[in-house]
Amino acid sequence: MHPRGRTEWVLTTDAFLENVHFLLRAHSAEDVGYKALARATSDLAAMGARPLYFLLSLALPPSCTAKWFDRFLEGMSRAARSFGLVLAGGDTTKSPLAAINLTVIGEVTPGRAVLRSGARPGNLVCVSGTLGEAELGLRLLQRGLQKRKKWKRLLRKHIHPEPRLALGEWLAKSGRATAMIDTSDGLSTDLAHICEASGVGAKVWANRIPKVSVPSDLRKLGLDPLRLALDGGEDYELLFTVPRRLGQHLPRAVQGVPITIIGEITREKQNLLIDESGQTKDLPAQGWDPFLLRHSAGK
Amino acid sequence: MHPRGRTEWVLTTDAFLENVHFLLRAHSAEDVGYKALARATSDLAAMGARPLYFLLSLALPPSCTAKWFDRFLEGMSRAARSFGLVLAGGDTTKSPLAAINLTVIGEVTPGRAVLRSGARPGNLVCVSGTLGEAELGLRLLQRGLQKRKKWKRLLRKHIHPEPRLALGEWLAKSGRATAMIDTSDGLSTDLAHICEASGVGAKVWANRIPKVSVPSDLRKLGLDPLRLALDGGEDYELLFTVPRRLGQHLPRAVQGVPITIIGEITREKQNLLIDESGQTKDLPAQGWDPFLLRHSAGK
Repeated sequence: MHPRGRTEWVLTTDAFLENVHFLLRAHSAEDVGYKALARATSDLAAMGARPLYFLLSLALPPSCTAKWFDRFLEGMSRAARSFGLVLAGGDTTKSPLAAINLTVIGEVTPGRAVLRSGARPGNLVCVSGTLGEAELGLRLLQRGLQKRKKWKRLLRKHIHPEPRLALGEWLAKSGRATAMIDTSDGLSTDLAHICEASGVGAKVWANRIPKVSVPSDLRKLGLDPLRLALDGGEDYELLFTVPRRLGQHLPRAVQGVPITIIGEITREKQNLLIDESGQTKDLPAQGWDPFLLRHSAGK
Repeated sequence: MHPRGRTEWVLTTDAFLENVHFLLRAHSAEDVGYKALARATSDLAAMGARPLYFLLSLALPPSCTAKWFDRFLEGMSRAARSFGLVLAGGDTTKSPLAAINLTVIGEVTPGRAVLRSGARPGNLVCVSGTLGEAELGLRLLQRGLQKRKKWKRLLRKHIHPEPRLALGEWLAKSGRATAMIDTSDGLSTDLAHICEASGVGAKVWANRIPKVSVPSDLRKLGLDPLRLALDGGEDYELLFTVPRRLGQHLPRAVQGVPITIIGEITREKQNLLIDESGQTKDLPAQGWDPFLLRHSAGK
């Protein structure tokens, strides 16, 4: 492949594994194919890159039939078309457990890729979309509640996340974002990633966070919107920082995706949450940690 | 990353999986790290590309300790230094089984990448090094014979394959090779890959194949040098075709790696073996097929 004229390439690689990230009995082949590529592509969105090519490395157990494989490819093709990606190569093998690895290649204007490390004290902390929706869907699935008709729509974000490519590109091109990450691990953990890489802290207002709306009969099961929004992963929204002076010029939405200012970056290397009653608390990183496997399989 | 001036990039992706490609109880952490990268880089050698960067996607079970991980990285770093590769990114997660995926990026002069599809009738079929050595090592390991001191050196190629980068680059730059592949699956299968992609057939002389030398007490166990050379995978030698007129100008070795002419490409789409008694036989693709799992784990 030929990089075009004045452009910079960014590459990301992402593993999507049976029993770690998905369950063959709970997720359809199409959904596995779609989500594997959506997750990997979200990393490009978070740098503000435009997707170009991807490489698929696929290991499948004998239980995955030719029909399963066809549907998997259908789901992945749908994602590829929707994100503007072209399959550039791959590798296939058999394995006791399904293991999918995607490498996605994108381009950015030289010097315009947004990193995690550029957040500065005084910057505003912003987030796209709504947080906690994917985690709510996962919890319903884990409790076997996904089949109830009235809750089916609550699974949408868990099954079918949408990388925020247009917003990411817009933020990068316009040079507005000083740091950016996608909320794959959850707000508390992904904000910690930005703060650590930037050598800063942050303060977030609980009542400003765009939280998932949880039906009252599910709230009774202990599903709290704030906790889902703070620690739930896989929303694949963009969490980014902008200079304070840009705050009032930020549009409320870019291509239909809402943007909300939820906090600010501080000099003190400590992440804090101002709760709904105005109390200041620690904001520990309690999202997805691959080395803890704190969440059960399916996350 | 910035592609330099007039250059073309090639990318390969390769999965290296526990219980499919290696066994944690039989292969050391260093060896797993080294071989994972060597395998993936061999795909670049087969296109004639010069290695630049790699991305590591790593999923490890809890049984892999920090010490295991350090040693794994040591083995991989040794491979990276030796092949001229720089780690450009990655992804880590936990998983019930170790799953390593490597994406390797290399560069070639525009239009000079060698593909599988360029073999033409009359071309000579050539191979580097010696075939069957890695398979012999694997068989010893499978039979638990690897600890016998006198046979230890026979495991070298299985444990420590060397991608033929200098030879691949030389063949590509000089425009000599019309088609090329690495012998990861075994001569019979990799030759079939070239022939299928090129729409041709091939004729190979058994007595010209540079075959592994098998000690006589191992021959008694049914380890036949010709079968090992034809169907044994993972030698990571280069199998390539050159125009007939170049045959007599081919050096016997490039940077110490021997080159042997073993056959020719034919118009008839059939792969044939002229055996040691001069009889012509079919040459079925009987090497490694990931969708058969014909070989036992450890291949």
